Amino acid sequence: MQNIISGTGSYIPKIVMKNEDFLSKEFFNETQKKLPNSNDIIIKKFKAITGIEERRYLNEDLKNSDIATIAAQRAITASNVNPEELDYIILAQNFGDVAHNSTQCDMLPSIASRVKFNLKIKNPNCVAYDTIFGCPGWVEGVIQANAFIKAGMAKKCLVIGSETLSRVVDPHDRDSMIYSDGAGACVVEENKSENKGILSFASQSYTFEEAYFLFYGSSYNPEKPAETNYIKMHGRKIYEFALNNVPLAMQLALEKSNVDISEVKKILIHQANEKMDEAIINRFYKLFDKDMPDGIMPMSIHKLGNSSVATVPTLYDLILNNKLKNHELKSGDVIILASVGAGMNINAIVYKQ
Amino acid sequence: MQNIISGTGSYIPKIVMKNEDFLSKEFFNETQKKLPNSNDIIIKKFKAITGIEERRYLNEDLKNSDIATIAAQRAITASNVNPEELDYIILAQNFGDVAHNSTQCDMLPSIASRVKFNLKIKNPNCVAYDTIFGCPGWVEGVIQANAFIKAGMAKKCLVIGSETLSRVVDPHDRDSMIYSDGAGACVVEENKSENKGILSFASQSYTFEEAYFLFYGSSYNPEKPAETNYIKMHGRKIYEFALNNVPLAMQLALEKSNVDISEVKKILIHQANEKMDEAIINRFYKLFDKDMPDGIMPMSIHKLGNSSVATVPTLYDLILNNKLKNHELKSGDVIILASVGAGMNINAIVYKQ
Repeated sequence: MQNIISGTGSYIPKIVMKNEDFLSKEFFNETQKKLPNSNDIIIKKFKAITGIEERRYLNEDLKNSDIATIAAQRAITASNVNPEELDYIILAQNFGDVAHNSTQCDMLPSIASRVKFNLKIKNPNCVAYDTIFGCPGWVEGVIQANAFIKAGMAKKCLVIGSETLSRVVDPHDRDSMIYSDGAGACVVEENKSENKGILSFASQSYTFEEAYFLFYGSSYNPEKPAETNYIKMHGRKIYEFALNNVPLAMQLALEKSNVDISEVKKILIHQANEKMDEAIINRFYKLFDKDMPDGIMPMSIHKLGNSSVATVPTLYDLILNNKLKNHELKSGDVIILASVGAGMNINAIVYKQ
Repeated sequence: MQNIISGTGSYIPKIVMKNEDFLSKEFFNETQKKLPNSNDIIIKKFKAITGIEERRYLNEDLKNSDIATIAAQRAITASNVNPEELDYIILAQNFGDVAHNSTQCDMLPSIASRVKFNLKIKNPNCVAYDTIFGCPGWVEGVIQANAFIKAGMAKKCLVIGSETLSRVVDPHDRDSMIYSDGAGACVVEENKSENKGILSFASQSYTFEEAYFLFYGSSYNPEKPAETNYIKMHGRKIYEFALNNVPLAMQLALEKSNVDISEVKKILIHQANEKMDEAIINRFYKLFDKDMPDGIMPMSIHKLGNSSVATVPTLYDLILNNKLKNHELKSGDVIILASVGAGMNINAIVYKQ
């Protein structure tokens, strides 16, 4: 008997930041030298690789826990669960609540506690905690919920992924154009019928050489104080790492599910970089001596950027609500949810609708 | 079949901060007025209530992940586990790595990833994540490890609680005297023999009115920048909350275990405040119409202060290594591990040695 995702919800912030909005920025490289190309050229190259045309930023007066709450409310409504019956609120995040113009991450209390407070849930036996697992945190939260239900410790779990990366970017780093804000959520429940739900999963942490591929570091602008840290990445290393390892993790999960690759209808992969995501899925199919099928890879990155833990649940919610053109799911369809990010962590879930 | 704690380890930082070291501080109250009493009187009252004579601070060149690693290494040695066979590294923390004199919490990558990196573990299937659950985070990590093993997802889990509260205290708040640094760890494993291990547990999150009893707020010193946050608490509210609810959570866990209260040999409670801890355990026994037995409550707070997630595993490790005078445990003894803290979260585990 498998556990199911009984409802989803998401929140897409209102502020649209277009690529042109970065034309006036002053970009430096990791050695704090100004980039030689014009911003126009930098942005064209950026779009060609990542696919990102625009991304969403949160209104100044809102915080991460606010949008996590909205996504959670929508998932609760969609699943038709009584919030007082939730056994767990598992919230994946990496920077807590960061107020506009603040350099401090606030997670005292945890973002899960704040969401539970905002939802006005009284039941003290609904346990609220945050999980820190890089961008794959929401997928990992679903795996944790699955474990609690399998262990007989829970029946209904709310799993949220919420992040405001716009609050932790270095505006002098061109990688800042990748990141965005967003929140996605779902309710995981014991299955009431057979033959659907979470069929299998794989979860991994590569740290031996990879731990600091994503890190918290100083601005590339030499005039900024060195003690203030921002989200930073070794993009080239991450690209190679992801290409080498994400297909294998997806293969591992698929093999555990006993589902044939031909039955996989969609792969919802972390929206990190369009070229990288395409290369990962291409290589995944190559492991089975197959070509990547048309329409297998729904993408939201063009308009929404990379909102870390929020990308996969937001993408899933958009598809379930028929808000992603040319992509739909029907009962019995097998999908793979997959992610990769800081840690470096990788995970994948094989799920039957 | 119950899961067991097969080994423990801890790290007690080297710098001893005595109560007298706070005589020169300038203390203000929450309305930013200077406290009327002399520091000598403030410190005497502080000691009478909390029991704290001294506390430990981490050397300036070390961070939270460094001491988490040392505690982890010791737990690995004590349990005789091969680190490459660990399925999970679960790390409880609340502020990440905070460098000396920094106001930023760094958890990119997660502290669990940093520990795995420091331990030079290569196995990618050892999943490393942080859990944010206030002071009860380490006890909750043990509950999560227990779930993963019960669900068939893991056999051996390393659970660490590590915190450097000295890096997030407001030196102008007398509550700063409570907090200290430390790390504790254990390995949770599938049991190989019968009739010992984790018998039962209870876990709760009170948020409806209590979510912000512990919070991240500005210095009490009006001359300090209001945008810089520190650990803050509504001490009186926490005291009443803990007294009303921790005994009930412990009772709930004990009832699930089917162990009679007379069989409980020790209660290892979060070292928050000696008077509060005594009152909690007194009230717990009153629920069973009993008086609190002598020697039931080992305490480390006098010399070690409140190191958040690290208090319970450190206390347990000290007892198992016969480093706490007049307290020892032998095979078959039933103990309760209990904690309360930010969230507001409460948990308790009934464990048979």
